[in-house]
Amino acid sequence: MTGPEIEETAGAPQSGMMPLITRLYPICRSITGDGVRATLDILGGEIELERHEIPSGTDVFDWTIPPEWNIRDAYIADGSGRRLIDFHEHNLHVLNYSTPIDTVMSRRALAAHVHTLPQHPDRIPYRTSYYQKRWGFCLTHNQWQGIPDGDYRVCIDADLKAGALTLGEVLLPGESETEIVFSTHVCHPSMCNDNLSGIAVLTRLFQWLSRRPRRYSYRALYVPGTIGSLSWLWLNRDRLDSVLGGLVLTGLGDPGGLTYKRSQQEDSCIDRLAALALADGGEDWEQRGFSPFGYDERQYCAPGFDLAVGRLSRTPFGEYSEYHTSADHLDFVSETQLQGALRACQRFVEYLEADRYWVNLSPCGEPQLGKRGLYGALGGSGGPDEFRLAMLWMLNQADGSRPVSDVARRSGLSMELLAEAAETLAEAGLLAPADAPASERKQ
Amino acid sequence: MTGPEIEETAGAPQSGMMPLITRLYPICRSITGDGVRATLDILGGEIELERHEIPSGTDVFDWTIPPEWNIRDAYIADGSGRRLIDFHEHNLHVLNYSTPIDTVMSRRALAAHVHTLPQHPDRIPYRTSYYQKRWGFCLTHNQWQGIPDGDYRVCIDADLKAGALTLGEVLLPGESETEIVFSTHVCHPSMCNDNLSGIAVLTRLFQWLSRRPRRYSYRALYVPGTIGSLSWLWLNRDRLDSVLGGLVLTGLGDPGGLTYKRSQQEDSCIDRLAALALADGGEDWEQRGFSPFGYDERQYCAPGFDLAVGRLSRTPFGEYSEYHTSADHLDFVSETQLQGALRACQRFVEYLEADRYWVNLSPCGEPQLGKRGLYGALGGSGGPDEFRLAMLWMLNQADGSRPVSDVARRSGLSMELLAEAAETLAEAGLLAPADAPASERKQ
Amino acid sequence: MTGPEIEETAGAPQSGMMPLITRLYPICRSITGDGVRATLDILGGEIELERHEIPSGTDVFDWTIPPEWNIRDAYIADGSGRRLIDFHEHNLHVLNYSTPIDTVMSRRALAAHVHTLPQHPDRIPYRTSYYQKRWGFCLTHNQWQGIPDGDYRVCIDADLKAGALTLGEVLLPGESETEIVFSTHVCHPSMCNDNLSGIAVLTRLFQWLSRRPRRYSYRALYVPGTIGSLSWLWLNRDRLDSVLGGLVLTGLGDPGGLTYKRSQQEDSCIDRLAALALADGGEDWEQRGFSPFGYDERQYCAPGFDLAVGRLSRTPFGEYSEYHTSADHLDFVSETQLQGALRACQRFVEYLEADRYWVNLSPCGEPQLGKRGLYGALGGSGGPDEFRLAMLWMLNQADGSRPVSDVARRSGLSMELLAEAAETLAEAGLLAPADAPASERKQ
Repeated sequence: MTGPEIEETAGAPQSGMMPLITRLYPICRSITGDGVRATLDILGGEIELERHEIPSGTDVFDWTIPPEWNIRDAYIADGSGRRLIDFHEHNLHVLNYSTPIDTVMSRRALAAHVHTLPQHPDRIPYRTSYYQKRWGFCLTHNQWQGIPDGDYRVCIDADLKAGALTLGEVLLPGESETEIVFSTHVCHPSMCNDNLSGIAVLTRLFQWLSRRPRRYSYRALYVPGTIGSLSWLWLNRDRLDSVLGGLVLTGLGDPGGLTYKRSQQEDSCIDRLAALALADGGEDWEQRGFSPFGYDERQYCAPGFDLAVGRLSRTPFGEYSEYHTSADHLDFVSETQLQGALRACQRFVEYLEADRYWVNLSPCGEPQLGKRGLYGALGGSGGPDEFRLAMLWMLNQADGSRPVSDVARRSGLSMELLAEAAETLAEAGLLAPADAPASERKQ
Repeated sequence: MTGPEIEETAGAPQSGMMPLITRLYPICRSITGDGVRATLDILGGEIELERHEIPSGTDVFDWTIPPEWNIRDAYIADGSGRRLIDFHEHNLHVLNYSTPIDTVMSRRALAAHVHTLPQHPDRIPYRTSYYQKRWGFCLTHNQWQGIPDGDYRVCIDADLKAGALTLGEVLLPGESETEIVFSTHVCHPSMCNDNLSGIAVLTRLFQWLSRRPRRYSYRALYVPGTIGSLSWLWLNRDRLDSVLGGLVLTGLGDPGGLTYKRSQQEDSCIDRLAALALADGGEDWEQRGFSPFGYDERQYCAPGFDLAVGRLSRTPFGEYSEYHTSADHLDFVSETQLQGALRACQRFVEYLEADRYWVNLSPCGEPQLGKRGLYGALGGSGGPDEFRLAMLWMLNQADGSRPVSDVARRSGLSMELLAEAAETLAEAGLLAPADAPASERKQ
Repeated sequence: MTGPEIEETAGAPQSGMMPLITRLYPICRSITGDGVRATLDILGGEIELERHEIPSGTDVFDWTIPPEWNIRDAYIADGSGRRLIDFHEHNLHVLNYSTPIDTVMSRRALAAHVHTLPQHPDRIPYRTSYYQKRWGFCLTHNQWQGIPDGDYRVCIDADLKAGALTLGEVLLPGESETEIVFSTHVCHPSMCNDNLSGIAVLTRLFQWLSRRPRRYSYRALYVPGTIGSLSWLWLNRDRLDSVLGGLVLTGLGDPGGLTYKRSQQEDSCIDRLAALALADGGEDWEQRGFSPFGYDERQYCAPGFDLAVGRLSRTPFGEYSEYHTSADHLDFVSETQLQGALRACQRFVEYLEADRYWVNLSPCGEPQLGKRGLYGALGGSGGPDEFRLAMLWMLNQADGSRPVSDVARRSGLSMELLAEAAETLAEAGLLAPADAPASERKQ
């Protein structure tokens, strides 16, 4: 499943993402409960995680942390005790957050609690009922059609009790306390693209980030959807000023191209750099405007926060038929696609780090490059003429008001080449880093 | 002449616009005189009007109210006393504002005072000379060709005497003193599109407005062209700050599509909402940039006022051959076209009223719609999914800085649906109306 | 060589540009030395010039004025004393700024000091080494191929001694001290397009400018490339606030269309008017964005100055094969092309002068044009209807915030017609000139 270009070292934490996804796949996750904890246990083996437990009943802005849900067993059995539907065969068989039940009922009475997909008769749908007390089973349509009339034992051995909601986070401090947030949801049970792909890419991204110098601080959030991101926002409500923005990562392993959904701000540096990174990445990609419909970006972009958080995915949710069904299994995602998404995230981070403001220390005319040995200097990313042009652009534009990405856009030169030229000029004493203008700074 | 969809109740004031136009058609109007008063008399039977009389000689900015013109009779008669041309057959036969004359002259001498349209030999042209003392006759070219050489009695029984200029206005107060002005010119004699159509649509619009709740105040102006709008501006020069903007209505009954001419400001809320209303209206339409050539919008948009007043018409003046001729008669306009223009005005008003600024009272994340019974709520204008999306957009965008029209443009959802969503959210205590930002407010 | 439309009076200073170029062509110029002085001597016969001599060793921002270079003779001679290559046949034969040498060496040893153009074997390349001490010869590739192995006398009789760098400038004062700078480089030896064309057009432009009224002050700069413009900037560093902007003139005689390269500001009034002047000029033209690569515009546009200085040329340097070779000779440029460039510069100046800010003194509605005899007035550049429209546009837009070029862009009317309308209205007391807004003013 890993492409030939992917370095795979057995047992090494960075050894591809499919092995990690394969380990996480069987766990029955929900917005609360031991499934999330088991997931974070495994991730904790890959990267040092901090955990938060927020007790049931806690008021989180307009919401309340619900009772914790844990499930041990569930089945529909016939008169002989034979399990026709068994939670242990697929955890999607149970309506997520089902209340417990243990009774005998007719097929007809059971029908009101059964969800199928007639248009995809061999797929189990994924259904939830977090805030309305209900119970239910999700079956393939073929399974349901194969159950004759009669009475059946219907059992869901689950708890809904005071407990907690569990969050995982990783903070990688950088030179600045200004931070970039990457968020992914950990509440979905056995589906790979939604959202083990997001979990895997986020984990590998932060392993990579942990080994490189960082101008910004970076925060990974492993959160249950909606209530989880709201909980993190609530816990951190007094320090959100330090968040410059970030990305929600989800749906990154399917066969489609990359899709960037812009933040509510639409033209923040996050939005500009994410689009630039995808455009330069060589993969098919598209971008879409913000809408308040989707994943946790809708919480980060709510008017009370208005953080510059976009979303990176491949095929957007709801636009592929495997979405929210048992067909979103291990074969639906591939190492190649996951690696492509990881590289896009890495390029985005590299651009963020490179996108400094610089000021020319010798601004009256072009400084004499020749006497500094820079006239025919070579950058790693370009020939001498291109590198000289990059130096001239940086010298000309470095008035402290324009980040490197502006120079890239205007000059048509790459972020890499310009950043390299800036570093070279800084070493020669010709440029110095400048603070971002107040309008772009968070703290 | 009324289309099948138009409700026609004999004698009811709202019974279509053609009957009103038919009553107004025979009157000889000018920029002053009894024709305007007779017109306002008839309109006063439809809607309560206030009248102003501004005496001749009054200085109105750079202009002076001219002497009042009234005409009783005019003709060209042959030696036998037979009237070859008779004002009582068509009031366009006399150069509007002609000085009186009663003499006998040769056809050759008369020629200098005769206006015809050789390219449309059966149409009488419309000509005026308000500020230069002249007299003249307007004939069809065929009539003029049919008059043999010889001497003719030429008589114009008219006065140019100290009097007044007459304005009519209607004020419909709303919650706010900020007002929207609709202006139409009442100085043209027997022509239907220019401008009985504007007069009829304005009157029906204000009858409709008088029966609906109003956030803004609305003012209808029935004014002679140029000098009339200037007179109203002069009378109201100390309170123009309360005018948010408005529309000049003219030429609304011809067979062409609707044309919106933007105000000098080009991108005021008036301009944006007028364009949006026409775009949503389903009729053919176009918009044009401002130019200081046209009807009274050139006065409202003069730099000393710079009011956001655009112009709504069908085929712009001068772009149809019937313009300013006797061919602009009762058959040139139709109830269907007038009703379409009225509906466009009504939609513009509805959009103005709906285009509020809202502020989210629960801005930290999405509020929990489910616990308020709003998750599957239905709006009158859309299904549950679309209505939920409209609520999410309003919640996300309601930071007090964006009117509903901005949300409509960004979301692609309709003004109606978004306004309905906002009202629903306001009833649930989630949104509150906000003042327009200072840059958009007039008082 | 002069086209039939060019008025040619023998001996008159304005008699075409080719005669001037022909006189300047033989002189061996460099960034310092007597070649520049001889050039300024000839130009001083055309227009009154002021000269500056800046001593070698003077620090000019990041640069230092180099030793002065003067050359008397140079050749490569065979054993018999026959000159195979002779500086007196073409001054491009010597690497500009060569150190002196007089020795005998083998062809093989000489090869390291010889520059040719194998792809254009009959052209001598132009090469310089101002800041690295070197010597060298430039030959046609055919010449070099024709020199057999053997020993040769190699002689360059040149000085590099303390001296000065020479600048020429012309100031034509106007009503305002705000000045427009036209700059051209005078450091290139015998090449016509680069840059005798720039020198000739600049000289004729200022002769023309000296005879017309001037709202702005105009300054012509005849400067050696890079170090010369930097020297002028350094000498004037305390008064650069008075420079509104300007143009670098170079490469104006080749057969290509006109090319405007925008200043770093990209949308200054200089940039807008230069583009408008070229668009209205009727010649093929294009514009390009700024880049910090090129001629002296890169110095004027450095961040420490950021003057709105664009560049006017025909085919941009490096995009024609004759560039920087002996093929850039008298036949490569033509009077017709030079005259076209001169007309473009004149139109640009006319637009600059016309691009005033005006304020309407009767802003409350349209003033009554009829009572001032302006209703049917005729402008020189348009019929009565077009002239009236131009007056209406000027009256409407004249709020003191919009230059005439904005009105031209918005109305589609020409700068000439609008400027004429403004003057007519000013004579009638309806408009008055206004100061440019602070954001557009330099002092």
